Amino acid sequence: MSDEILRAVDGGVTAAKGFLAAGLPSGIKKRGGPDLALIATDSTASIAAVFTKNRIQGATVRLCRERLGARVARAVIVNSGNANACTGPGGLEDARRMGKITADELGVDESEVFVCSTGVIGVPLPMDCLETGIPQAVALLAPDGGGMAARAIMTTDTRPKEVAVSFPVGGTTVTLGGMAKGAGMIEPNMATMLAFLTTDAAVEGAFLQECLSDAVSDSFNRITVDGDQSCNDTVLLLANGNSGSPVLDAGHPDADLFRKAVAHVALRLAWSIVEDGEGATKFVTVRVEGAATARDAKAAARRVANSLLVKTSWFGCDPNWGRVIDAVGHSGVELVEERISITYDDVVAVSGGMAAPTPLADLEAVLARDRFTVNIDLDVGDGTAVVYTCDCSEEYVRINSDYTT
Amino acid sequence: MSDEILRAVDGGVTAAKGFLAAGLPSGIKKRGGPDLALIATDSTASIAAVFTKNRIQGATVRLCRERLGARVARAVIVNSGNANACTGPGGLEDARRMGKITADELGVDESEVFVCSTGVIGVPLPMDCLETGIPQAVALLAPDGGGMAARAIMTTDTRPKEVAVSFPVGGTTVTLGGMAKGAGMIEPNMATMLAFLTTDAAVEGAFLQECLSDAVSDSFNRITVDGDQSCNDTVLLLANGNSGSPVLDAGHPDADLFRKAVAHVALRLAWSIVEDGEGATKFVTVRVEGAATARDAKAAARRVANSLLVKTSWFGCDPNWGRVIDAVGHSGVELVEERISITYDDVVAVSGGMAAPTPLADLEAVLARDRFTVNIDLDVGDGTAVVYTCDCSEEYVRINSDYTT
Repeated sequence: MSDEILRAVDGGVTAAKGFLAAGLPSGIKKRGGPDLALIATDSTASIAAVFTKNRIQGATVRLCRERLGARVARAVIVNSGNANACTGPGGLEDARRMGKITADELGVDESEVFVCSTGVIGVPLPMDCLETGIPQAVALLAPDGGGMAARAIMTTDTRPKEVAVSFPVGGTTVTLGGMAKGAGMIEPNMATMLAFLTTDAAVEGAFLQECLSDAVSDSFNRITVDGDQSCNDTVLLLANGNSGSPVLDAGHPDADLFRKAVAHVALRLAWSIVEDGEGATKFVTVRVEGAATARDAKAAARRVANSLLVKTSWFGCDPNWGRVIDAVGHSGVELVEERISITYDDVVAVSGGMAAPTPLADLEAVLARDRFTVNIDLDVGDGTAVVYTCDCSEEYVRINSDYTT
Repeated sequence: MSDEILRAVDGGVTAAKGFLAAGLPSGIKKRGGPDLALIATDSTASIAAVFTKNRIQGATVRLCRERLGARVARAVIVNSGNANACTGPGGLEDARRMGKITADELGVDESEVFVCSTGVIGVPLPMDCLETGIPQAVALLAPDGGGMAARAIMTTDTRPKEVAVSFPVGGTTVTLGGMAKGAGMIEPNMATMLAFLTTDAAVEGAFLQECLSDAVSDSFNRITVDGDQSCNDTVLLLANGNSGSPVLDAGHPDADLFRKAVAHVALRLAWSIVEDGEGATKFVTVRVEGAATARDAKAAARRVANSLLVKTSWFGCDPNWGRVIDAVGHSGVELVEERISITYDDVVAVSGGMAAPTPLADLEAVLARDRFTVNIDLDVGDGTAVVYTCDCSEEYVRINSDYTT
């Protein structure tokens, strides 16, 4: 039902009322190109966030965590081309300085400015670029600046990633939009995933966080390109209330609709990351059902989606279910080999743990598609999970072994 | 000390007295080439075994597990080109039939014949090839047949893998040799690792198993090519006592020497698998020290060794320590970022969690080597671990996406 009420609209982080954005080249990227993005809201927004679980955390992740407590935001400043990670105490100082310049230029409190970085690890931020660039970004802020911002957070992304929807809350139309970057590497470092969502709904802080956490767990946490996890992954959601909507909280009649809108935008942004995966030629949905538990289902789906043998076989358009069933077995989940079935889209490859009598050509026809689903039914319980991923091509290796720093 | 007492000798599974072997093409491999190997011993041997932990297990693994209880062996029959996995009840019957033909031809009890298969998954064994091939293999059995057997178990391996050593037990010289295959794919399915060790020492069964389990845990379980684990992985160790040595058990004065000999041969065979890794251009040792626990150290080392981003950067000769430290963080082990140091061989890349002031050219010089060690010191405890791996090249993707079945 929500998909009918949610109406796709143009734009990304500036689709919602009262949000301004800008993007520009500040000189951080050696090869040039936009590398500094700014999102700002005229009125104070409540904010929710989800961060990487990596035990190495970039300076900006540490700073954002520190500032999240108050749940109040006025701006987000983001640079690409340098992750400001593994940069020691100086890195944290630089992150604070990025926030301070932004706050001073905007005339807001620095505690209300969130800071994100993505790019090469272990190199100090070139602060001169930011000292010059941030005032320029503030000057460029515009209500249609979302597209510029979306391009400025790109690294090896081949295209900007924006999604927005409108829907009614009470009698008021509210808008929720967002942008994302990843899974690209920077010069050539690590796949950082960043996503920024903005809405003009008025949303109580704890409920906002709950909506974002749930959405991330079913979207950004369900995608994988290469199984690696960056130390800078960050998703932020700002709600400034500019639509004039009533304040949404968990008890509001439209709470569920808002929850679904956040899930919808997060999922589409997550898909766009996989679609733009490095060297990817196919978008593959791995669905596990009939697992003993949801946890088992997720473990099996992730193991299949991250198996290099499986991913390279997809690239070769090879319906190699032996690699799929082996990866399931490797995941260590509860299973009875003789109960497993595997289908590619609706074509049965494995039945009762053995090859189904399906002509190879029928399976090959599915594997030749740009998008397909691998369904794995373990038939031992009710656990289900879905993971979105891509194949692994020679181009992936080329991109990530090409030493250009 | 053991390395001085252990004297390298020629050969593999027939280096030890009383072992015969053969290898020949039986027609299982569509492209031709040797695909059937037989190891036999004139006198009964005690046997130890370690099998894959994958929850999907090939028919031959099931059969070997069943027969291991008696700890008695007279022969091992191995085919390559077909894994006899995911083949249902018929697969188990075929595995039994392979053993039965072998036993009948040799005139031994079928419970003393062990059976292994490696190759394509989900395809019934072409039993006609085995009905004809096994008697031929028995006829070909020879005391210098180890090399033929080593070639017959190869799949995408580019070379046979054999190791043997001699050492004194009491006043008697005993020999321990072995052969291995992997990490190759078959036509193109899954990386199966098989290894067979033979010795003419007389060894009590429980002690033999203890020696093999310890050796495998520090050798075959410390290597990774692509992080996948086959459903057919098997390591067997046969001891026939033909040297006339006293019976070794855990209390014998030379018990430790024998233990070290098994570890030595297993480790060299394991290394040879990594050196022959699909598309590999570099042999990399990942050493983690200073972890909170040995378990943590192993988890961190494995995460680094299996990171596709790390492996592709090695292929690119890129001293990209950012990917290494990120993988360590992703492993979830206890760490304090500011205490981490990383060296490539003896060149310091990271100190105190930050870039060390080492000229890039010095790091690049290490990465250009065919073999190097990445040392990661977490400096929070005494846990250490070593994992042996290789880089990931475009050739790996080519091999594994090339659909030739």
